[in-house]
Amino acid sequence: MTSRTDVLISEVGPRDGLQSVAAVMPTAAKRAWIDALHAAGLREIEVGSFVPARLLPQMADVAEVVRHALGLPGWTVMALVPNTRGAEAALAAGVHKLTLPVSASQAHSLANVRKTREQMVDEVRAVVRLRDQSAPGVKVEAAISTAFGCTLQGAVAEDEVIRLAEQLTQAGADETGLSDTTGMANPAQVRRLFTRLRAAIGAHAGAAHLHNTRGLGLANCLAAYDVGVRTFDASLGGLGGCPYAPGASGNVVTEDLVFMFEAMGVRTGIDLARLMAARDALRAGLPGEAIYGMTPEAGLPKGFVPASALGR
Amino acid sequence: MTSRTDVLISEVGPRDGLQSVAAVMPTAAKRAWIDALHAAGLREIEVGSFVPARLLPQMADVAEVVRHALGLPGWTVMALVPNTRGAEAALAAGVHKLTLPVSASQAHSLANVRKTREQMVDEVRAVVRLRDQSAPGVKVEAAISTAFGCTLQGAVAEDEVIRLAEQLTQAGADETGLSDTTGMANPAQVRRLFTRLRAAIGAHAGAAHLHNTRGLGLANCLAAYDVGVRTFDASLGGLGGCPYAPGASGNVVTEDLVFMFEAMGVRTGIDLARLMAARDALRAGLPGEAIYGMTPEAGLPKGFVPASALGR
Repeated sequence: MTSRTDVLISEVGPRDGLQSVAAVMPTAAKRAWIDALHAAGLREIEVGSFVPARLLPQMADVAEVVRHALGLPGWTVMALVPNTRGAEAALAAGVHKLTLPVSASQAHSLANVRKTREQMVDEVRAVVRLRDQSAPGVKVEAAISTAFGCTLQGAVAEDEVIRLAEQLTQAGADETGLSDTTGMANPAQVRRLFTRLRAAIGAHAGAAHLHNTRGLGLANCLAAYDVGVRTFDASLGGLGGCPYAPGASGNVVTEDLVFMFEAMGVRTGIDLARLMAARDALRAGLPGEAIYGMTPEAGLPKGFVPASALGR
Repeated sequence: MTSRTDVLISEVGPRDGLQSVAAVMPTAAKRAWIDALHAAGLREIEVGSFVPARLLPQMADVAEVVRHALGLPGWTVMALVPNTRGAEAALAAGVHKLTLPVSASQAHSLANVRKTREQMVDEVRAVVRLRDQSAPGVKVEAAISTAFGCTLQGAVAEDEVIRLAEQLTQAGADETGLSDTTGMANPAQVRRLFTRLRAAIGAHAGAAHLHNTRGLGLANCLAAYDVGVRTFDASLGGLGGCPYAPGASGNVVTEDLVFMFEAMGVRTGIDLARLMAARDALRAGLPGEAIYGMTPEAGLPKGFVPASALGR
């Protein structure tokens, strides 16, 4: 495997995936799954959410999981935090990067975090201040959810998404990405909105977090790649969705996304065979849960040589 | 609905779909399914193959099915023919368009039609001659299968695919398209090969026939659209594959493809609600068969307005 990569695949399964299933994965199983993901060559992972355990019992062990992930070398360990209280706990646990969800849809913001968009911008500002004081090396990411539409309010104005990204950048977010929380995005919209995002906030433009709800996940990733996006969220086995956005389901499948990029000659640095093997660890931790992925089912094509193996 | 369209969706379910399932759909059920597809606004359909019934019993009633489809106004009725004998029968039945599969992979050609590539070019030439004599208004399409790789021989040289397209055009094919029979294509390859195809044979460049075997179907369609392809094969419910290419499965799902284009502002002329309703006719004719489609499962997004409904 080459050490040079062209895109960064950010695995969100342990956070976005687990929060969407009813079962609670035992801590030991989470550790084994995270180990398998690391062994496959992933270099960024969102390992959990710092939220009250009564709201998401799946995340009760998040601090322990973070400590485990930090013991593995050469990757960025992220956690989702909805507010400064969560950020304090995440920084105490030692995460490398915080991500805060900020809804472009007012209806979704209230449902998801019980705060308005504007209150969430203030929250990001407060988290940045906290970070500056206690852990200046930690990155703060804002992820604009429902950026491409909302199951509660329908269409979301693109101007509002871009204005929100500008406000978040002014509030101190190092990166601001766009999330298709509800699986409503299409490739033309993805190209338009990420192009506008880069024009508005330049190098602060962050990851594409796209869902496969209507089968367009990879097409939307391709569209984002075409306009310069180089960080992509994905979830092993397509686990995940959003528990507070009715009908939202299906993160982009990491295995399929990595196969697409590697087949195109775009290096992810990820070993596909080991990535497929990580599915066993996921299955062992969540028996009975549906795991998706077309490439794992079909297998790799005869004679397939991934770009990352070419050692360019 | 507007009558202007930007792309042509060519439904291949009654041919490519049915040939891949063991069950034989009753003729009355085929008629009802074809009626439902026509009612949804499809304007091109491949209704069957003129092949010996002992090889594909699913197609024993093809002449009757062609006659039924010809009774519906305003669309192009196609049939697959592997040779002049099939072409004679198809022309006698009155089809508007013939399509001949020509494998870029020698191994697949022998397995699929028991002829070499070169023999198939001769077959196309003979079919064109027959057409010229007996039905000059009928179009002849050549579809280059395994154009993006072969499950039997592995990689297929792009130069050979393009040379084959030139030979087919010289042999008189009105259109030559490229088929990802085995689901091995990636978006970079799709862009490269369709760009070369157009450079080589200009306006004779035909349809993209892409599969979703590894989840890349829509991304590959987007890639083809990006480089100017405007005709796309797809199959309702994703029914289909190729019985002679081991591991090949999963035509692009018509419903998901139409949703992607309509969401992007690209007019297909197809009514998504009626297209979804056509799934009932398919299910009724093939009870117990798996039917795919992410958009039908998720439903249309809240507030969704298809491009074809805007009446531009």
